[in-house]
Amino acid sequence: MSKHEEIREQQDDFNDGLTAAELESLHPADAAETIEGLDIIDQVKFIKQLPIRDAAKSIAEMEDHDQKILIQNLNHGLAARIVEEMAPDDATDLLEDLDEEHRQALLRRVPEEERAELKTLLTFDPDTAGGVMNTEVVILDQDLAPDEAIGQIREQVEDKEVPYYAYLTDRKERLVGVVSLRDLLLAKRGVPLREMVKDQNLITVGYNVDKEEVAHLIAHYNLLALPVVDFGNRLLGVVTVDDVIDIIHEEASEDMQTMVGAGANETTDSPVTFSVKKRIPWLILNVVNSAIAAYVVHLFDATIAAMALLAALMQIVSNQAGNTGQQALAVMIRQLAMEKFDRKKAWFAVLREIKIGVINSALISSMVLAVIFIATGDIMLAGCMAGALIIDMLIGALAGASIPLILKEIGRDPAQASSIFLTTITDSIGFFSFLGLATLFIL
Amino acid sequence: MSKHEEIREQQDDFNDGLTAAELESLHPADAAETIEGLDIIDQVKFIKQLPIRDAAKSIAEMEDHDQKILIQNLNHGLAARIVEEMAPDDATDLLEDLDEEHRQALLRRVPEEERAELKTLLTFDPDTAGGVMNTEVVILDQDLAPDEAIGQIREQVEDKEVPYYAYLTDRKERLVGVVSLRDLLLAKRGVPLREMVKDQNLITVGYNVDKEEVAHLIAHYNLLALPVVDFGNRLLGVVTVDDVIDIIHEEASEDMQTMVGAGANETTDSPVTFSVKKRIPWLILNVVNSAIAAYVVHLFDATIAAMALLAALMQIVSNQAGNTGQQALAVMIRQLAMEKFDRKKAWFAVLREIKIGVINSALISSMVLAVIFIATGDIMLAGCMAGALIIDMLIGALAGASIPLILKEIGRDPAQASSIFLTTITDSIGFFSFLGLATLFIL
Repeated sequence: MSKHEEIREQQDDFNDGLTAAELESLHPADAAETIEGLDIIDQVKFIKQLPIRDAAKSIAEMEDHDQKILIQNLNHGLAARIVEEMAPDDATDLLEDLDEEHRQALLRRVPEEERAELKTLLTFDPDTAGGVMNTEVVILDQDLAPDEAIGQIREQVEDKEVPYYAYLTDRKERLVGVVSLRDLLLAKRGVPLREMVKDQNLITVGYNVDKEEVAHLIAHYNLLALPVVDFGNRLLGVVTVDDVIDIIHEEASEDMQTMVGAGANETTDSPVTFSVKKRIPWLILNVVNSAIAAYVVHLFDATIAAMALLAALMQIVSNQAGNTGQQALAVMIRQLAMEKFDRKKAWFAVLREIKIGVINSALISSMVLAVIFIATGDIMLAGCMAGALIIDMLIGALAGASIPLILKEIGRDPAQASSIFLTTITDSIGFFSFLGLATLFIL
Repeated sequence: MSKHEEIREQQDDFNDGLTAAELESLHPADAAETIEGLDIIDQVKFIKQLPIRDAAKSIAEMEDHDQKILIQNLNHGLAARIVEEMAPDDATDLLEDLDEEHRQALLRRVPEEERAELKTLLTFDPDTAGGVMNTEVVILDQDLAPDEAIGQIREQVEDKEVPYYAYLTDRKERLVGVVSLRDLLLAKRGVPLREMVKDQNLITVGYNVDKEEVAHLIAHYNLLALPVVDFGNRLLGVVTVDDVIDIIHEEASEDMQTMVGAGANETTDSPVTFSVKKRIPWLILNVVNSAIAAYVVHLFDATIAAMALLAALMQIVSNQAGNTGQQALAVMIRQLAMEKFDRKKAWFAVLREIKIGVINSALISSMVLAVIFIATGDIMLAGCMAGALIIDMLIGALAGASIPLILKEIGRDPAQASSIFLTTITDSIGFFSFLGLATLFIL
């Protein structure tokens, strides 16, 4: 049993007889999970018993949805004190989720200085660097010596969340460099900070840059924090690595939705109308595409009228090829999302999928050949099924692997509606090859 | 244009006339991308010109596949010096990818001390905490005072990659606590470290714990590094947050593959036989499942023989419902992967999908009703299509949203083969409702 599971189990054990002291002794992330498991009346009861600091930390770790309900069930005074105690980025996330009236009620109760900061943060688009940044940064004068800098950090560090980097600014608040505590501890005495950052590859991001791009940069450069600047290169805040982990998770799983024509950013919390708007264009594309496959079948009306069983068996062919293609599709889309695009390697991967398709279609078609022959005694029918399966599964493997690459080459999202395009191809080819073979060899 | 794109463009610009000095001035992550874009002869040429330290840093950032080819094209002496210069976890990753002969040739050329460490690291399963951990940790005696500790860190820090936490061990090398540089800077003078960590919620992970669980723990507790221990609680190393970002990315996109019956950990680099083994069981399940849908069609052989057009049109119904279901499926699977499971909220999400299904099926079926009526003049046929579409798209929405929850409730992976189960349902119900309605009202 892993540590994580152990903790969960402990939580389950004492959920019934939970005391505030026990809750206080938990890591805020675990306290948050425990609180989420309680009903709202108990949630409020425990939050009232916790020290404000612990309450704020635990609430910051709760899911957006649970957080919002809990805060709206606390009295305004307590809720405002909790918001005030939270890191400004967490407080902003929370305030964004509340309805306007509630948000204003809490903001009015927060002291002037914090209120001004929260109001500024609320002006940033929540999907941009400005919307996810933390404003509690350690700022140092570039003329300080390392030991003076460490002294200053000691003074500033208590109420800052991210003290592993300190930021150097000039007189006009423009960012000129970043030093880590590690750099400061290693630095020669007496050399001013400005000398330490002279040849630095300073990586910054504009406040209006999309948060997914921010996550990319942090992952690409292995950063713990990335400074956010305005157009004048003035330091506004930092985005820390723990804040981008959720963004990376969200983004990595988007393709699963877009490949079937759902919206990239749909969640189970999205309004119904939002989801309808995102999905209906692709459903319309799908109906048009499946009309193509239906037309192919229609070409063989005479064949089907003569032997209706073919209409049943053709499903098996198209389904099998569809599934084969989707397996190739999923592996390719994921690869394109994980790695830098390498054209040669990508087309090599298509070849790999074809090889897999050759083996899988040989295995499946032999199996189907045997079963259909045993069931019907009709070797021609069994042969047509097997032949169509081989043709269509190979086409499926080729199409599944190629569609994301083709979308990529023409500058589109490699996942978008790819499953819909794939099915059109495997259905049409499957019906055509099976009904065609049957027309030639059986009738 | 974002910072990242700008850098890429600059790289494209000077790829032709690239000099070693330019390469040296890049961030190692960008140098790695630039090197990957060169042919292997130029790659070797530039690596030979770079200082060993820069070469090691850049190669550590390259994709596994490119890294392996480059190292195998360098002479053993240079390759071994580069491996020696890399962080032990990066060096181990690289050595694991090489073939046995090459690995041994490089290890023989690495100095005794580093060799022993790399050999130990190579014994850990690469998919576990031990396989991804870094062994360069700062270890302090728990009896030190904070200022003494800072002094010790100053001495140790130069060749350690992760100096933001220091680990306290007892005489038997057992881990007793973790202090951050921040804690040390804030600490009262004279109080020994052991007092600082007395009531600490120490979070550790066993060396044999799966790397995905390690990534979960780091994300859950917002850690920058997680200590890895053996069964005697002795400190072996740490996993840092930058090392788990790729793991999180991989894991988040796995579901896309498992939902269609490809292997969770398949990549375009997996051997063909590995992929065949992972996929064939699900393809067999799919063929059995599509036989069920085929049997449903077979029940209506007489209907189809009387009106072969129905065999063409039934595709449109089943396809539409399949796509509707897949959209619901993808959104549900993603939600289950992103958030802690909340039964009430999950079934509420099913209701949401049904609402979306009601609207989408009303829109699509009206459209199809109109088109079929205009095309064929047959209002009964158009009505049967529209009716079957509404029934099957609603079933699709319900099934797509419920299947992951049912799999979850019975303790299975919510994504595994879910798309295959869904298609069986939407095909069978689609064929049955359309052919059934047609039998009743048209023939």
